[in-house]
Amino acid sequence: MRVLGIDPGSRRTGYGVVERHGNVHRALAHGTIAPPAKLDLAHRIHAIAVRAGEIMEEFRPDAVVVEEAFYHESVRSTLVLGHVRGALLAAAVGHGLAVAEYSPREIKLSVTGTGSGSKQQVAFMVRRLLGLHGALPPDAADALAAALCHLHRARRSEPLRAASAAARSLEALLLKRARR
Amino acid sequence: MRVLGIDPGSRRTGYGVVERHGNVHRALAHGTIAPPAKLDLAHRIHAIAVRAGEIMEEFRPDAVVVEEAFYHESVRSTLVLGHVRGALLAAAVGHGLAVAEYSPREIKLSVTGTGSGSKQQVAFMVRRLLGLHGALPPDAADALAAALCHLHRARRSEPLRAASAAARSLEALLLKRARR
Repeated sequence: MRVLGIDPGSRRTGYGVVERHGNVHRALAHGTIAPPAKLDLAHRIHAIAVRAGEIMEEFRPDAVVVEEAFYHESVRSTLVLGHVRGALLAAAVGHGLAVAEYSPREIKLSVTGTGSGSKQQVAFMVRRLLGLHGALPPDAADALAAALCHLHRARRSEPLRAASAAARSLEALLLKRARR
Repeated sequence: MRVLGIDPGSRRTGYGVVERHGNVHRALAHGTIAPPAKLDLAHRIHAIAVRAGEIMEEFRPDAVVVEEAFYHESVRSTLVLGHVRGALLAAAVGHGLAVAEYSPREIKLSVTGTGSGSKQQVAFMVRRLLGLHGALPPDAADALAAALCHLHRARRSEPLRAASAAARSLEALLLKRARR
């Protein structure tokens, strides 16, 4: 099973592709999408969605995991983050991929064993679980953690996946009919 | 000059295409995009972006105007609205169209002469300015108002447009280089 994790942000969006074979998790790719800061929001969002779409096409993951937005102290930041997430979710659906979402807390809990783990702890455990050595930007670490979280969850709920695939087909069918 | 106005919403997104010839404004199309309520957020956003993209292709407007998000009493609603806006802005840029944004207050001011005009007042003036008779859903009225607002503004700033077109080309160039 192969999962693309995304840690969305309008300045820097982290991504990471993780594949599981039995008990072994391997990072196939990870990095940061950082559109030129001079671009306005619409162009930044578009650039992020296009690059993410290229990664989706290249790796064809079984699921795209987008970290849920937590409510920033500033409503404005929350709103901007919502814009980026919206474009990424639409891109995933547009590429025919299943979407999953987890809260930052669930993701931390899944890789560090505590929902309040620090960013450093998350990066440390991601390196450890994936056997990574070189540089690992913080956003990429969070994205890889999101992918790992989904792989741990999916493992516990394999039978559910058939059901959710059926539900998605039904949704697609409804959508097609509604657009006629 | 032809403008597509959009009043974004995850349940109902209004749209309206307005064309100006001299002093005459004409509505070429208007309506509401309402994806099946049973779809999850990602699929709803995608459905809205796809339908909006079809409208962009059909009418090839000179600009797409997306009403700015106002901060709802609920941060959650603001966040959801951000998702829809993000997908719509990315779609507009993806279709190579210029994007403009106005606050609900600016739009109301532009069509009713007061920034605190009611929804009824906006719909009344939109009908009047565009000579519309049949049914006009509230979201479509708001979208047409957004388009009218841009046409009024654009009129006062035609010389600015050449400059902003040059800026956009530069942005696109920077983006291309950054993605290499």
